[in-house]
Amino acid sequence: MPTLDFHPTGRHFLQIPGPSPVPDRILRAMSLPTIDHRGPEFGALGLKVLSGMRAIFRTKHPVVIYPSSGTGAWEAALSNALSPGDLVVMYETGHFASLWQKMAAKLGVQTEFLAYAGSDEHLPNAPSWRRGVQADMIEQRLRRDTDHRIKAVCVVHNETSTGVTSDIPAVRAAIDAAKHPALLMVDTISGLACADYRHDEWGIDVSVSGSQKGLMLPPGIGFNALSPKALAASKSAKLPRSFWGWDEMVEINKDGYFPYTPNTNLLYGLDEALAMLQAEGLDNVFARHQRWAEGVRAAVAAWALPIQCADPAVHSPVLTGVITPPGVDADAVRRLIYERFDLSLGTGLGKVKGRMFRIGHLGDSNDLTLVAAIAGCEMGLKLAGVKLADSGTQAAMTYFASHPAPALLRKVA
Amino acid sequence: MPTLDFHPTGRHFLQIPGPSPVPDRILRAMSLPTIDHRGPEFGALGLKVLSGMRAIFRTKHPVVIYPSSGTGAWEAALSNALSPGDLVVMYETGHFASLWQKMAAKLGVQTEFLAYAGSDEHLPNAPSWRRGVQADMIEQRLRRDTDHRIKAVCVVHNETSTGVTSDIPAVRAAIDAAKHPALLMVDTISGLACADYRHDEWGIDVSVSGSQKGLMLPPGIGFNALSPKALAASKSAKLPRSFWGWDEMVEINKDGYFPYTPNTNLLYGLDEALAMLQAEGLDNVFARHQRWAEGVRAAVAAWALPIQCADPAVHSPVLTGVITPPGVDADAVRRLIYERFDLSLGTGLGKVKGRMFRIGHLGDSNDLTLVAAIAGCEMGLKLAGVKLADSGTQAAMTYFASHPAPALLRKVA
Amino acid sequence: MPTLDFHPTGRHFLQIPGPSPVPDRILRAMSLPTIDHRGPEFGALGLKVLSGMRAIFRTKHPVVIYPSSGTGAWEAALSNALSPGDLVVMYETGHFASLWQKMAAKLGVQTEFLAYAGSDEHLPNAPSWRRGVQADMIEQRLRRDTDHRIKAVCVVHNETSTGVTSDIPAVRAAIDAAKHPALLMVDTISGLACADYRHDEWGIDVSVSGSQKGLMLPPGIGFNALSPKALAASKSAKLPRSFWGWDEMVEINKDGYFPYTPNTNLLYGLDEALAMLQAEGLDNVFARHQRWAEGVRAAVAAWALPIQCADPAVHSPVLTGVITPPGVDADAVRRLIYERFDLSLGTGLGKVKGRMFRIGHLGDSNDLTLVAAIAGCEMGLKLAGVKLADSGTQAAMTYFASHPAPALLRKVA
Amino acid sequence: MPTLDFHPTGRHFLQIPGPSPVPDRILRAMSLPTIDHRGPEFGALGLKVLSGMRAIFRTKHPVVIYPSSGTGAWEAALSNALSPGDLVVMYETGHFASLWQKMAAKLGVQTEFLAYAGSDEHLPNAPSWRRGVQADMIEQRLRRDTDHRIKAVCVVHNETSTGVTSDIPAVRAAIDAAKHPALLMVDTISGLACADYRHDEWGIDVSVSGSQKGLMLPPGIGFNALSPKALAASKSAKLPRSFWGWDEMVEINKDGYFPYTPNTNLLYGLDEALAMLQAEGLDNVFARHQRWAEGVRAAVAAWALPIQCADPAVHSPVLTGVITPPGVDADAVRRLIYERFDLSLGTGLGKVKGRMFRIGHLGDSNDLTLVAAIAGCEMGLKLAGVKLADSGTQAAMTYFASHPAPALLRKVA
Repeated sequence: MPTLDFHPTGRHFLQIPGPSPVPDRILRAMSLPTIDHRGPEFGALGLKVLSGMRAIFRTKHPVVIYPSSGTGAWEAALSNALSPGDLVVMYETGHFASLWQKMAAKLGVQTEFLAYAGSDEHLPNAPSWRRGVQADMIEQRLRRDTDHRIKAVCVVHNETSTGVTSDIPAVRAAIDAAKHPALLMVDTISGLACADYRHDEWGIDVSVSGSQKGLMLPPGIGFNALSPKALAASKSAKLPRSFWGWDEMVEINKDGYFPYTPNTNLLYGLDEALAMLQAEGLDNVFARHQRWAEGVRAAVAAWALPIQCADPAVHSPVLTGVITPPGVDADAVRRLIYERFDLSLGTGLGKVKGRMFRIGHLGDSNDLTLVAAIAGCEMGLKLAGVKLADSGTQAAMTYFASHPAPALLRKVA
Repeated sequence: MPTLDFHPTGRHFLQIPGPSPVPDRILRAMSLPTIDHRGPEFGALGLKVLSGMRAIFRTKHPVVIYPSSGTGAWEAALSNALSPGDLVVMYETGHFASLWQKMAAKLGVQTEFLAYAGSDEHLPNAPSWRRGVQADMIEQRLRRDTDHRIKAVCVVHNETSTGVTSDIPAVRAAIDAAKHPALLMVDTISGLACADYRHDEWGIDVSVSGSQKGLMLPPGIGFNALSPKALAASKSAKLPRSFWGWDEMVEINKDGYFPYTPNTNLLYGLDEALAMLQAEGLDNVFARHQRWAEGVRAAVAAWALPIQCADPAVHSPVLTGVITPPGVDADAVRRLIYERFDLSLGTGLGKVKGRMFRIGHLGDSNDLTLVAAIAGCEMGLKLAGVKLADSGTQAAMTYFASHPAPALLRKVA
Repeated sequence: MPTLDFHPTGRHFLQIPGPSPVPDRILRAMSLPTIDHRGPEFGALGLKVLSGMRAIFRTKHPVVIYPSSGTGAWEAALSNALSPGDLVVMYETGHFASLWQKMAAKLGVQTEFLAYAGSDEHLPNAPSWRRGVQADMIEQRLRRDTDHRIKAVCVVHNETSTGVTSDIPAVRAAIDAAKHPALLMVDTISGLACADYRHDEWGIDVSVSGSQKGLMLPPGIGFNALSPKALAASKSAKLPRSFWGWDEMVEINKDGYFPYTPNTNLLYGLDEALAMLQAEGLDNVFARHQRWAEGVRAAVAAWALPIQCADPAVHSPVLTGVITPPGVDADAVRRLIYERFDLSLGTGLGKVKGRMFRIGHLGDSNDLTLVAAIAGCEMGLKLAGVKLADSGTQAAMTYFASHPAPALLRKVA
Repeated sequence: MPTLDFHPTGRHFLQIPGPSPVPDRILRAMSLPTIDHRGPEFGALGLKVLSGMRAIFRTKHPVVIYPSSGTGAWEAALSNALSPGDLVVMYETGHFASLWQKMAAKLGVQTEFLAYAGSDEHLPNAPSWRRGVQADMIEQRLRRDTDHRIKAVCVVHNETSTGVTSDIPAVRAAIDAAKHPALLMVDTISGLACADYRHDEWGIDVSVSGSQKGLMLPPGIGFNALSPKALAASKSAKLPRSFWGWDEMVEINKDGYFPYTPNTNLLYGLDEALAMLQAEGLDNVFARHQRWAEGVRAAVAAWALPIQCADPAVHSPVLTGVITPPGVDADAVRRLIYERFDLSLGTGLGKVKGRMFRIGHLGDSNDLTLVAAIAGCEMGLKLAGVKLADSGTQAAMTYFASHPAPALLRKVA
């Protein structure tokens, strides 16, 4: 059995923005014996988790569950709805938006990659990675597309590489204002079940998500939530697809089954995760993440280090990116923190490699865990020679102590 | 938490040909906390399971691990190695061979689907589903392909829908005899780690497999084992692919990491499964399955019911298909057995729906479990009004009692 | 981690009359993190399991939960209710009744050990071990005790060493008929939650039980259920006691807590076990065990081997003892079965060592598991050279197939 | 299944001085299926854990494992070695020493309870609870006992209620200096596997311990380590005993078995715990606890709150008691901290109820977990209106950052 003993004692602090820590209840649920995926018990389970996921996406339309990563769910979205050579508009909010764009290109889709055009003091090579989607740029681009060559607009809801949560209703409004028929595809891999998200109300055509963030599961499940318009588009879309095909999935899911072998034990975990989220209530879940994010940002402010997200209006409730001072290799700091304090932080990806690190504050966490994570960062930054204006740990403690969460104590059933 | 209590007491007998029963050790391993898939501990784990899987496939070349089902691994094989419109020869051994053929067609590959041309007494509509791959048919077809339009030959090693284990070296010999450059792709989803399989020695270019059969894991991992020739072919192959792309995988796997989030907790299980298989020794694993299969076939012979596989030379060590008498709905018998005896059997798929059921005898099992499964079948068949020539349970007991397995008792480490 | 791999593959068949197989749900529940046994969450748990255990014992009076084995619960019963030199009447139904008698003597209690006085064909040295408690012998003894020197009558409800379930209401009636004030103490370690048992209605003063039988838990919890009369007796009883003391336990239990550290994780399992038993209903639990016992006895009858319990009126629903023919070492047969078929059977204890083995049919089991166990016995007996009249496996299959259990299929909540 | 959801998200911080947090590896090990405690696999396990425990106690003589709490192991020590009316000298270091004394009295042993006779500024009612055993007082008492009426000296190694680790070799030296034959009995329930302890070298006759502290298991196992002299004394000792009897235990343990049903699943956990401790090395384990304790005491010093242990020479490496200012109800602070920050602290027991709380820093922990616990205390104390001189959190961070632990990173096997 893997012993996971790189650090000999105590619990590892997994503060990357996903996979997030998996609650014991879910790990236990996942360890129940595998059953026949064609038997009656499985069908009942399938219907239950499909229905539960519709509630999480806030949709009445089909949700598709893939035995894959979130990356697979991206591919599913593109390959079901588009044809070779189709033009899509994507928006560069960070590394994951960029990877999605590269995937689209690999699949034979023509992409236009919009980006914030301004400059940036701290990250001059990546100003677009510090801000949310500029909906007006999308609107302008769509208005120019008078013959409707653009088939889809693809944006990331919560950009995991930066800690920016874009305003999706504004994107919808932009498309509507341009009176453009393009599909709206949204990656909410790290946003779902952390930040407010409303597939139907916000007029999203394809939502893409995964299991290992707000749903508190290990990685291994990808999701698509669909609109009727997306389903209609898939009837004529011509990118080759089989494994990802919505049509068979949606049809066979009606009875709770899947066209090929699903990953049963992760679905046990999903069932448990849904029970936990339902018991808490989605609005409470979102408020919990907002409060944590404020505590963490109070710490970063005390350190006087720049937050990756330059626009307070779109600070992520899920993670906070911290830019290290010029000359300080953020990955060296991360490594020191990992080795000395058994704390995993998110690395700077792509254009911001070595320039920042990310603190995840999502899923199954609590105040003290976050204080510990901040303390670990603070000790590590100091050991690395970074001058900090003040104690972020103290600032977070002050914030959490003076902003009590809603009553937490539960009754035994 | 799911309670899995459709049957209120006792352990379910999961005798479908996969997912096979998952050993407690593996379920426990999978329930360890999820770690950072970009951290140093993960890299060590990744290298370990990649190396272990090469030993299972008996290859020195790269093995690719997907967070997907085996169906995904099929798609990976096709989309990496082929271009739109390429011609491939496939061979109909059963339902899964047929599904693979349909997938190829969906992906834009041109397929020729060879099949045994004879007649069959018991299943006149599916004679090809009772026999293994006829290598001479493949050889003849390839010899006719003088301009080498055929890019690949795709066959199923152990056809899970029928219980036929085709002779793969014979297929290799056929291709060689025809001096044809086509790639040889083999689905060994249910064969791997149950029946002898040698990727390198048998000259296979792409092997396709999954986690939920001989590897004793829950579903959720797909594998490709590659030859240098397959890797070379992928450089120029033009089917669109991103998630399935071998190139990034093989490159990043060198350090034990993955290009996108892997399903970490299943990899914990894979590590434990590899430890168990290594401790037993692959040859012992294969002998164990052969012995079980003989015991089960002794039971079916006592009942005097036809075995789905009509050719004793290719009887599967993994599962045994049992044809029910004309007029007896095999699925009704299965349902009765499930409800009365808490035993899951494999259904007849596709062309043989309702005409047969399948007894899985693979992975984490033992003599008494198989005797119980046979007893469950026997009671159910009788309750369904099927006349049985003799007691299969007794026949299996006689077989197992008179054919002792090699010494089983272990020492404590 | 222990690998439990004395047998390399498949699930062990644990058919001893306890510890019985522990359901996955309970093992998972037990693996949740340990909490503070003085905190509010523990108090809620404590109240829940104490209340649940009163329902299992069918009592309104206190139940005491010890972090100990059932043997400890015996000592608790004696040391709380008796004084040094007190006279108690015990009844020899088998090995465990004998051990309890020895314990009483060790603790300084004077014992009279009644036993069936007749002869026995098969086990001439242990005729009393093939029959239940003869209540009339107890009545006669008590009637002679005109000065009430006898302080307690101690009997075993379900004698685990023999498979005899004595008639406890008859013992109560005997005491009442003799108008004797002695306490009635009953060991129902293996009877509870398998066979009907009613602490209050049957007028029992101290019931003794354990976790590893009908409650389907691992060993490690002992129980006492008390009557007001027993509690009153404990006020003046003078055997030294501290760990086992009822007084502090009952007092502190009122709030769900314990006077010393309880074994928290087993209590998690107890909570789950109670939920399972409540969902099924105790009367269904008892009927289920009766049906299994009949199936197993049908097998033994087919073999034409004598059942340890000579009196059909008191055949145990929990286990069946099987006497081997003269000259056949039952333990050699058991060892052969263990090594060849991965099946654990109960050994003959004390006076019947080597002369019999025991098949447990209790707790978390089902028809096919019992058929497998019987098949394992049958193969092993034959390999050991025992002539069997007919196939017990077939007889059990016929019984189970023709006596369907009540509808088992459940709905998903 | 218990949901343990009094706090809806994140991991509870269990910082009581036992039960200590149970590592995932141990919880997983404990959830393996229960086996036959009379079968060969169990015997191998039994021998392994018995041998492992001798290494932990640093003894070559028998160690006895009870399915009980540590309280039971106390009773075992007394009832095996003593006779009714025997005189024993005990020493009041705190609540647990007092409970042991009460137990001895209940069992019919005559006790003299020595205590530090000085005064104390902060806890005038409990000066003896702030200091370690005064070996000279014991020596003087023994010297006066010229006719050797005193049969045993009983002291607590690490007093869990106060955080004082007494000097056991000094007690041994005192007994030797007095040339007294009394047995030396030591409670090291919370000391074992946290603080240095040497049963043989220190001349201890009976060591008493439990599973839920340094061994990192859930509660439910009690231990006695014995000297030949203790075993000899038990031959003539007359306190009634059966469950606790060393004689049968030691005899039957020779083959790895137990005289009555052991708590098998906790023994799986013990096997895993021993593997973890052996891998780390006991001296590293002790150094780890010392370092943590220094960090925690640095925090309390920064707060300028008195530490319960007034003598720095005997500060416990296992836990630290913190005295709250006069008028501040420590339990009210603890409750606030529990409700607001999901952190469990140890309560003040007996004479110090409401006057102090205890921070456990033992077993499966690490720097960040302790920083979090200290931060939780700090926030709670402030919210309760306690004036703190300085930030203890900062002090602990400074300590841990400037005192790196020995290299922690491990290699994958």
